[in-house]
Amino acid sequence: MNPSADHTIIPIGWVESSLKDRAKAPRQGSEGAPDAWLLIKPEFAEGLHGIKLGQEIVILTLLHEARRDLLKVHPRGDETIPLTGVFATRSPDRPNPIGLHRAKILQIVDQCRLHVRGLEAIDGTPVIDIKPVLDGCNDS
Amino acid sequence: MNPSADHTIIPIGWVESSLKDRAKAPRQGSEGAPDAWLLIKPEFAEGLHGIKLGQEIVILTLLHEARRDLLKVHPRGDETIPLTGVFATRSPDRPNPIGLHRAKILQIVDQCRLHVRGLEAIDGTPVIDIKPVLDGCNDS
Repeated sequence: MNPSADHTIIPIGWVESSLKDRAKAPRQGSEGAPDAWLLIKPEFAEGLHGIKLGQEIVILTLLHEARRDLLKVHPRGDETIPLTGVFATRSPDRPNPIGLHRAKILQIVDQCRLHVRGLEAIDGTPVIDIKPVLDGCNDS
Repeated sequence: MNPSADHTIIPIGWVESSLKDRAKAPRQGSEGAPDAWLLIKPEFAEGLHGIKLGQEIVILTLLHEARRDLLKVHPRGDETIPLTGVFATRSPDRPNPIGLHRAKILQIVDQCRLHVRGLEAIDGTPVIDIKPVLDGCNDS
């Protein structure tokens, strides 16, 4: 049996951020997230080989405080907006609460700590994947 | 304990595509993927409420044929390119083999089947999330 068929996600690291509270986090990274750190576990550091300073990356996280039992939400938590299917929104509450964040690498320390700009995830959020942005508009 | 803390991914549906073989799939959706279907399980269909024809979406998949034990690969499978960390590539082989695909909705049938353009995943790939593209360039 293929090992990926087990459907279990392994954190490769964590977010270290001054954002501590989901209620105070911006809805999107472009809405004023503070610079943050990605702390990658040493056993996954080899996977960062080739990542460059200044590069734009896509970070996937597990939104560990999200609810998985909601299929409709009020977008942006605004109750004046009608209930909408979670797949038509960027709500963290969804069956598989995976966060998708675009950020820029400001600094790389010890080959496993990345200082990034534009990440709105709260402190302690598990990081599950990092991918390069291949093209400014078309790849994700 | 929060339910999302269990780190288990639940497929919300599957890809139906004429692409049957990973070796023949294009590396990116922009490289000639055939139109495909997303078959969403009836119990998650409510989450699609508000998704619109013509809309651009981000589809997250579980790349079920990928290897999870590789931290370096030859980008695009080209052995003339030096081994590179998986997080600096879009290789499907990575610790958490989550695919990120941008596609356009061509048709919505029975509130749970989406016909999409631009999806390079192979037939039978589990779909784990759908998100709207919020902005042409900045959100993912």
